[in-house]
Amino acid sequence: MLITPEPRTAAPPDGAPIVGMIGGGQLARMTAAAAEALGVGFRVLASSVDDPAAQVVRDTWIGSHLDAAVVGAFSAGCAVVTFDHEHVPADCLAAVTATGAQVRPGSAALALAQDKALMRQRLTELGHPCPRWAVLDRAQAREGPSQADSFIAQVGWPIIVKTSRGGYDGRGVWRIEDVDALSALLTQELPDGACWLLEECVPFEQELCAQVARSPSGQAVAYPVVRTRQIDGMCAEVIAPAPQLDESLAMQAQQIALRIAGDLDVVGMLAVELFQAGNQLAVNELAMRPHNSGHWSIEGAVTSQFENHLRAVLDLPLGDPAPRSPVAVMVNIIGTDARDLYSGYRHVLARDPQVKVHLYGKSVRPGRKLGHVTLVGNDPQELLTRAQHAAHYLSGIIDE
Amino acid sequence: MLITPEPRTAAPPDGAPIVGMIGGGQLARMTAAAAEALGVGFRVLASSVDDPAAQVVRDTWIGSHLDAAVVGAFSAGCAVVTFDHEHVPADCLAAVTATGAQVRPGSAALALAQDKALMRQRLTELGHPCPRWAVLDRAQAREGPSQADSFIAQVGWPIIVKTSRGGYDGRGVWRIEDVDALSALLTQELPDGACWLLEECVPFEQELCAQVARSPSGQAVAYPVVRTRQIDGMCAEVIAPAPQLDESLAMQAQQIALRIAGDLDVVGMLAVELFQAGNQLAVNELAMRPHNSGHWSIEGAVTSQFENHLRAVLDLPLGDPAPRSPVAVMVNIIGTDARDLYSGYRHVLARDPQVKVHLYGKSVRPGRKLGHVTLVGNDPQELLTRAQHAAHYLSGIIDE
Repeated sequence: MLITPEPRTAAPPDGAPIVGMIGGGQLARMTAAAAEALGVGFRVLASSVDDPAAQVVRDTWIGSHLDAAVVGAFSAGCAVVTFDHEHVPADCLAAVTATGAQVRPGSAALALAQDKALMRQRLTELGHPCPRWAVLDRAQAREGPSQADSFIAQVGWPIIVKTSRGGYDGRGVWRIEDVDALSALLTQELPDGACWLLEECVPFEQELCAQVARSPSGQAVAYPVVRTRQIDGMCAEVIAPAPQLDESLAMQAQQIALRIAGDLDVVGMLAVELFQAGNQLAVNELAMRPHNSGHWSIEGAVTSQFENHLRAVLDLPLGDPAPRSPVAVMVNIIGTDARDLYSGYRHVLARDPQVKVHLYGKSVRPGRKLGHVTLVGNDPQELLTRAQHAAHYLSGIIDE
Repeated sequence: MLITPEPRTAAPPDGAPIVGMIGGGQLARMTAAAAEALGVGFRVLASSVDDPAAQVVRDTWIGSHLDAAVVGAFSAGCAVVTFDHEHVPADCLAAVTATGAQVRPGSAALALAQDKALMRQRLTELGHPCPRWAVLDRAQAREGPSQADSFIAQVGWPIIVKTSRGGYDGRGVWRIEDVDALSALLTQELPDGACWLLEECVPFEQELCAQVARSPSGQAVAYPVVRTRQIDGMCAEVIAPAPQLDESLAMQAQQIALRIAGDLDVVGMLAVELFQAGNQLAVNELAMRPHNSGHWSIEGAVTSQFENHLRAVLDLPLGDPAPRSPVAVMVNIIGTDARDLYSGYRHVLARDPQVKVHLYGKSVRPGRKLGHVTLVGNDPQELLTRAQHAAHYLSGIIDE
C-alpha cells in the first residue's frame, strides 16, 4: 500500500519565491491563506505542531526562534523572511541574512519594534506625538519609586508602566495608581535586556489604529483608520472606519503612520496604535507585522493586510487598501472555561448567515485569543451587536 | 539543533472535525483556505507532492484515489470525506464508509456525477430539461455510425459526442460534423465502463451556470446565476450575475438547480451548467463539488463556494450566497509556452491595484488551467477587459 503522510514539500513552481515567517501563530495562519492565493511559497517556523499555523501550513518547521542555527537552517531557500511576532533576537536576524534571504522589516526597524523604550526615544526625536515618558533602568528600579518622582510630578497619577521588551496582548503593561503600587511593581523581574518604561496616562476619548503597508522601494498605502476597544490590554473590538472620527484627524492619523513607516524604513505592514483626545493624537504602540486591528480587512478591504504584507516584503506592487463596504466590524473570540468553540457553530451560523467566523485552531484557555468574527454592512452599532453575539456565544460568555 | 520538517500533524482542537478531500487540485487548494478560516481540520489525498493542494495543506497524504486500501487509510479519523473530482470508484467510496466517515455527496449521487449517460437518463426521468440524447454502447460502436442514424435523423448534424465517463475540461467531448468524423471517433478506445453519449448540439445564445449548496438536512441556498464562456470546452470566463439575463429565466435556472440537488440528494456544492436559447434552458452538465464557475464567489459573495461546500458536508448551517458587489468577473489563466507566471506579477499588480490573482502552484504547460483573476465592481465589460488583460499578461498571451 503506497500511502505516506509525506514529509517532503514541493518547491513553488517556476520562479515563485518562498516567504518564510518566523512564528506560527494566527497571524502566520492567516498569512498562509493569502500566500496560497498569490501562489508564492510559504514556510513557517513554529514552536510546536499545535501552533495555529503549524496545523495548516505544509512547509512547517518546528524549532526555536531564539536559536540562530535553527533560524539559519529555516531561512535557507527563502527569498524573504518576515515575522509573526517581535521576539526574534539580533543574532538570529543575522543568521537569516547570512543565508542570502532578505529580513523584512529590516533589523534596524525591528530593533525598535522589539524595545518600547528605544521606540519612544526614536519617535520623540523624529517629532511624532507621544505621551510623555521616562525610563527606569534596572539600577534605578532597585533604588525604588523615588527615582520616578520628577516624572510623576510632571504627569501625575495614574501612570502606565511597561516592560520595554517581551510584552504582548496586555502582558507587560500595568496601570499604576500610586507610589505603593509602583514600588511593588519595580521589585518584579524584568525580561532580559529590558528596562521599565513609564508613560503618561492619556485621558483618551477613543483608541485608534492606523495601518499602512510599505514596500522596500518606498511605495506605501494607508488603510482606513479604525477604532479599537481594548479589554485588559487586549484588542477586543474593531470598527472600520472609526465612526464619528473627524476627517482631518483620520488623515492626520494616516499621515503619522505613513511618516513613521518612512522614517523607520519599515517594510511590510505597520500598525500605529493611537490615543485620540479632542483634536490631539498620540502614538501608543507600533507593530511591524499584520495586526489584530486589521483582521477586518480580510472581508472588509479590497486587499487584506495579510496579502499586502506579503506583497510588501516581496517588493511587489501593493494592493488597494480601500474598504469594500461602508463599515466592517471585528470582534475577538476570547476563551472562557465554558466550552469548546465548535459546539457553538450550529447556533451562530444559523442565526446569522452573513457572519464570518475565523477560528485559529487553538485549544480553549480563559483569556486566550481563539478567533474572531467579522461582519460588513452599513450600521456600525447593528453590526457590532451581531458580531458581539456571535463571538460571545462561541466563547461561551452567553448561551442563547 | 532541534529542527525538523515535522511530518506529524496536529489534530484540530476541541471537537472540531476533520474533513478529508480526495484529490489535490486547485479546488482542494482553495477549499483549504476556507477550512483554515473555519478552524476545521482539512486533509487531502493527492497523487503527488506537486499537486496544487499538496503544496500548501499540512495534512496531505500521497496515494492513489483508485486504491481502496489507500482511501480507507486516508479516511480513518475524518468525520466527512468529500471530493475535488468525480473519479473515485465505488469500492473506494465503500472503503470510506467502512471507516465510519460520511461520504458527501453520497455514493448514489456521485454515481450520476461520474457517468454522463446515467445522469442524462436520470434527469430525463425526473423531467429536467435536457438536449435530446442517445447512447451507443461498445458493441453498437463496433457496428459503426449507422447505429446513430435514427438519432441523427431527429437532431441533424452537428452533434456533440462524449465519453460517458472520465472526461474533464473539454477532454472526452467532441463536436462531430458528419458521419465520417463520427465513424473515426467510434474507433477510439473508451475509458473503463464508459459508453458513447450522443447529444443534440443546442444552438445556444449563452452558457449559464447555476450553483447551489445543499446540506444533508435539506437546507439549500442558490448563488446568482452566472454567464460562462468556454474555449475548447474549458471554462475561460465567468460574469456574475449573467448580464442581460431575464429575471424569470435566472429564477428558473436557480429552481432547476435546487430541484436537481433535492432530486439527486446532493450534499455540498452542485453546479448545473445550462444552455440558454430564447426563453429555453437545457441542462448541459453537472458537477457535485466546487466548480470553476464559482471562483468569483471568493471575493464576490458573502460566503464563497468553498466555505459553503465545507459547511454543507459538515451539516452546518449554510452561509449567505448573496453577491457583495453588483458584478464580479473571473478570467482563467491558461498556460502558454510563453513564460512562467510570477515574472508577470510586477506589471499586472502595478497596473491594477484592485485585481485579485489566484495562482494554483502548477508548473506552466500550454492549455493548462494555472490560476484565475477576479475583479468586482459595477460594469461587466470594463471589469472583463481589465481581468482579461491581467490573465492574458500573466499567461504570456499579451506582453504589454
